[in-house]
Amino acid sequence: MQIREFQELINTMYSDRDRERGSAATFLWLSEEFGELAAALREGTHEELAAEFADVLAWLVTLANVCEVDLTGALEAKYGSGCPGCGQMQCTCNSKP
Amino acid sequence: MQIREFQELINTMYSDRDRERGSAATFLWLSEEFGELAAALREGTHEELAAEFADVLAWLVTLANVCEVDLTGALEAKYGSGCPGCGQMQCTCNSKP
Repeated sequence: MQIREFQELINTMYSDRDRERGSAATFLWLSEEFGELAAALREGTHEELAAEFADVLAWLVTLANVCEVDLTGALEAKYGSGCPGCGQMQCTCNSKP
Repeated sequence: MQIREFQELINTMYSDRDRERGSAATFLWLSEEFGELAAALREGTHEELAAEFADVLAWLVTLANVCEVDLTGALEAKYGSGCPGCGQMQCTCNSKP
């Protein structure tokens, strides 16, 4: 699945409600899922953990939609030419940036 | 960009160090970026905000790599057939699930 395709899927699925809610309230929903990811890391099955990753990603994409940020462009700008620290495709930084 | 392709890119870039660090310590790095996203929402430029989205996504993917979770499969299982609440491609839930 393309990142852009998933961002458009979430936009189609939820966008009207998301834009009404705004970015701060959407961040609250994302934070709730973030906490559930922590719980699943501690004591979830692999399947529950995978579902929590999906939820965090869906809410991150939702927030990006509310903020009109194109995630594909953002990723390509930051990571498309290699590690932002050392510029290598296999990082050689002393500490991960 | 494919989600799987980005997950593999991050794996190539950083995986050895990530696996040594483990999931709890990787979650700390993700949390740090999560805080930076909140700060950029409050007072960042659109470009700074986009870069913080990229960083959160990169660390989320890193954590998924450490946990051996395939994000594409997780997304397709949870959102590929529509909203997990109502099953529609355009959500009709009373409250967003």
